[in-house]
Amino acid sequence: MKLRQYGLACLFLQLCIMGSTMWHVECGKILVWHTEGSHWLNLKPLLETLIDRGHEVKVLVQNASLFMDPSEPSRFGYEHFNVSLSLEMVNDFMEEFLHFSMYEMDHMSIWEIYLRFYQLFKKDTAMCIQICEGLLRSDVVMGRLREGRFDVLLADPIYPCSELVAELLDIPLVYTLRFSIGNTMERLCGQIPAPPSFVPGAMGKFTDRMGFTDRLSNLLFYLSQDFIAMKVWEAYDKLYSNVLGRPTSFCESMGRADIWLIRTYWDFEYPRPFLPNFKFVGGLHCRPAKPLPEDMEEFVQSSGDDGIVVFTLGSMIKNLTRERGNMIAHALGQIPQKVLWRYSGERPETLAPNTRIYDWIPQNDLLGHPKTKAFITHGGTNGIYEAIYHGVPMVGIPLFADQPDNMIHMKSKGAAVILDFNSMQSKDLVEGLSTVIHDPSYKESAMRLSHIHHDQPMKPRDQAVFWIEYVMRNKGAKHLRVQAHNLTWYQYHSLDVLAALLAMTALVILIFIKTCAFCFRRCCTRSKTKSKAK
Amino acid sequence: MKLRQYGLACLFLQLCIMGSTMWHVECGKILVWHTEGSHWLNLKPLLETLIDRGHEVKVLVQNASLFMDPSEPSRFGYEHFNVSLSLEMVNDFMEEFLHFSMYEMDHMSIWEIYLRFYQLFKKDTAMCIQICEGLLRSDVVMGRLREGRFDVLLADPIYPCSELVAELLDIPLVYTLRFSIGNTMERLCGQIPAPPSFVPGAMGKFTDRMGFTDRLSNLLFYLSQDFIAMKVWEAYDKLYSNVLGRPTSFCESMGRADIWLIRTYWDFEYPRPFLPNFKFVGGLHCRPAKPLPEDMEEFVQSSGDDGIVVFTLGSMIKNLTRERGNMIAHALGQIPQKVLWRYSGERPETLAPNTRIYDWIPQNDLLGHPKTKAFITHGGTNGIYEAIYHGVPMVGIPLFADQPDNMIHMKSKGAAVILDFNSMQSKDLVEGLSTVIHDPSYKESAMRLSHIHHDQPMKPRDQAVFWIEYVMRNKGAKHLRVQAHNLTWYQYHSLDVLAALLAMTALVILIFIKTCAFCFRRCCTRSKTKSKAK
Repeated sequence: MKLRQYGLACLFLQLCIMGSTMWHVECGKILVWHTEGSHWLNLKPLLETLIDRGHEVKVLVQNASLFMDPSEPSRFGYEHFNVSLSLEMVNDFMEEFLHFSMYEMDHMSIWEIYLRFYQLFKKDTAMCIQICEGLLRSDVVMGRLREGRFDVLLADPIYPCSELVAELLDIPLVYTLRFSIGNTMERLCGQIPAPPSFVPGAMGKFTDRMGFTDRLSNLLFYLSQDFIAMKVWEAYDKLYSNVLGRPTSFCESMGRADIWLIRTYWDFEYPRPFLPNFKFVGGLHCRPAKPLPEDMEEFVQSSGDDGIVVFTLGSMIKNLTRERGNMIAHALGQIPQKVLWRYSGERPETLAPNTRIYDWIPQNDLLGHPKTKAFITHGGTNGIYEAIYHGVPMVGIPLFADQPDNMIHMKSKGAAVILDFNSMQSKDLVEGLSTVIHDPSYKESAMRLSHIHHDQPMKPRDQAVFWIEYVMRNKGAKHLRVQAHNLTWYQYHSLDVLAALLAMTALVILIFIKTCAFCFRRCCTRSKTKSKAK
Repeated sequence: MKLRQYGLACLFLQLCIMGSTMWHVECGKILVWHTEGSHWLNLKPLLETLIDRGHEVKVLVQNASLFMDPSEPSRFGYEHFNVSLSLEMVNDFMEEFLHFSMYEMDHMSIWEIYLRFYQLFKKDTAMCIQICEGLLRSDVVMGRLREGRFDVLLADPIYPCSELVAELLDIPLVYTLRFSIGNTMERLCGQIPAPPSFVPGAMGKFTDRMGFTDRLSNLLFYLSQDFIAMKVWEAYDKLYSNVLGRPTSFCESMGRADIWLIRTYWDFEYPRPFLPNFKFVGGLHCRPAKPLPEDMEEFVQSSGDDGIVVFTLGSMIKNLTRERGNMIAHALGQIPQKVLWRYSGERPETLAPNTRIYDWIPQNDLLGHPKTKAFITHGGTNGIYEAIYHGVPMVGIPLFADQPDNMIHMKSKGAAVILDFNSMQSKDLVEGLSTVIHDPSYKESAMRLSHIHHDQPMKPRDQAVFWIEYVMRNKGAKHLRVQAHNLTWYQYHSLDVLAALLAMTALVILIFIKTCAFCFRRCCTRSKTKSKAK
């Protein structure tokens, strides 16, 4: 990478002390793929650090983005591109997905769920392709990206097409990924091994301790997700082949990623096999708590020895039905703790004086406050990681996507109880809170996870930055890429070799039997001839 | 781990800055398992660092050790124990093994090699069991170990029984391992996944790029090694079960190791899957070059622009036949470089003035010297790692054990040529040296590997120390241990689940066929009745 100069910050070769290694970083240019929701929230602190280290960061953003707001003051540059989608269409799809996950799924058979999920997945793919085509069609933007001579493309593969653009721009690719459903991307495209007997598929709601039925279900879950993915990805295969002018596939393109930064660690995740180019950087957005705003601190201090409970259902849920809102507010009114509830819906009538509602809360700072006794959460990974970072036990009210699965991780590790959003009653919430606050095992488990999180050789964000810069310094990280990428599925599993072995064994047995039979016949013939002669 | 005080060095809680993380280390007590040869040479620098960090290190040594010399001044404490083996017996076995590897193997069929190897493996196991029993029988030593209240046992599992002793002492276990033949220990006991289609078995002499025949051979190599290991380990299974008073196995005991420090990295090794408790710390013994002794530096400088060649066949080979010695010396005399040859055998008659023979050479310092152009090596991992560290291309003359396999790694990565010790002639050695010195691709490849080695987030030795201390701080690292340890082999591979699925599918098909047949018969009967009625 040649030394490039962007303003004063990049005038000199930087010497950075990070890890125990001293390595030099030449200022580089990082292109960031468009993303959404919590994925974007998680990415921002990493981009801030990269900018602090002197790199230039340019973020791709499309006109129908729900969560990326280029008008917000920021230190990144944005590169806009237009797509043939409207904000309304994207929003409608999101609403449809949320409604399916939160309300419809409970009343559906397994087949109906799969069919509906397949339809939604196809719809999502069609939108992603529209976004991809929007970018590729814009000669101006693509021209600017080419001229930009970026050193790396940083992308969340949940928002596809980054691999195609990286190939067109001929630059290395670093993924940042929480998970794909059933780990299809990691397994089928990243070649990570995941024996279904002890590696539960993401979103399958199993732990790593599975009995026979769970192992059977997990295997079927993998197979069904693989089938859906292969079907849905066909649209990408076609697009990628057309654009590149040679037969290729989505998976093959994904397989060229140099590094996969996985946004978990063994505090949250069950231990499982992985590959040298998979780096686990869970909780990279976490940081020590900062002081609270004055009035909030006052409210928190007024809780005395009982402490506080922090409550949020995440950035996607703005509103609850009046009944659910009142039920929750009623429950919160019965506990001795003070409650800080992030909620922008209608104020519940049953809201008690111990509960304050906020449009926004400094969640990380509250979770890191010494008065915090519990965290009521929808189970998003970002929030869970903040709770792990600060060692706070959780009451999970998972709503959709990976949230139920995430909360099962926390429950199985002893740091959370789980409630069902649709069926829970006030007493369940009161009991749940009482359990995680008064049964010391929950706090102990949360602290154990926190300890695992902090007792790593390198901070997650430092590790992420190291590998992004590694790829920039070395134009990739091909020495970490397994040869499995060059094998077919049957070669990978040695099925051709086993078939040949079986055939050879069968042949040997056949020859043996035929020889025996021949000898036997000869003997019989001889003895018959003899007896006839006699 | 309670704070213990051993002299001044351990009076205070140490604050160590290592990696980017600040973590405190309480002075601990480390028990080190007896070991031999290059394994011991590799372990010593790590123990030195642990002592530098304030830990007390006690090394177990048996009276028939060939390479550990407790009379040598050192900073470790030694704990002696007696075994019913003599130095002569161990030496004889070593000679037998060397003779088999270096001379006999070439003239044997594959079956004869396997049979001979199996016999040697059994003999080695019998000796290891004698060593193990020697320790266990000594109530005095075992009592001292119990009273010692060690925080961790650090062991190379190639010298078995450490897992049994760790269990008896009820302390965590950290392995340091280069490899086991066919990766049997790592795969069968450590549960590391190794698909035979792209993970070549250690010592199998394959790379990770295998065609059909290589993949078939690699699979057969795995299977044969598994078979041999399972047969040979039966002796340990019996011993361990007897001592622990419950049915157990060698593999099960090995599976309780908290951390496996693997003494390679992706500079040397082909990328492959691994597990969270496997840490790759290859080259932890390497360090920057120190100045050479004055007369040696003078000789090196006298080489001018041609530079020098460093030559050693390792610590195990003291002597060569006169013919081989002369052939090598003759070859060395034909190159323009000056040669420093570590050799304690008879002085070859053909020795040229450009070649100097030494009983011992400061290998690392020579390899790190700017005048060094090439390294002639037997292909031991320690030497190869020093060459990688300093970016020196190699001419490999592998002799036995893992050496041929090691050199194939270096050759496939473009940093070495390989010669056959028994058949090579002077011109081959001259040509080999000329190739690695004058074809720039060899130096470039060596420098690329060196770059990979140095461009890691953490130095290998720091990483090893971190994980040893992690285990000491946390009394183990159970959160990194996969659930695969609790599955049988058929459960691991989901064979029971697949069998059930097959059975269910067969049942469904059977019911379907039976129903169809039944319906068909009913239809036929009716139409026959009708036609009869007609």
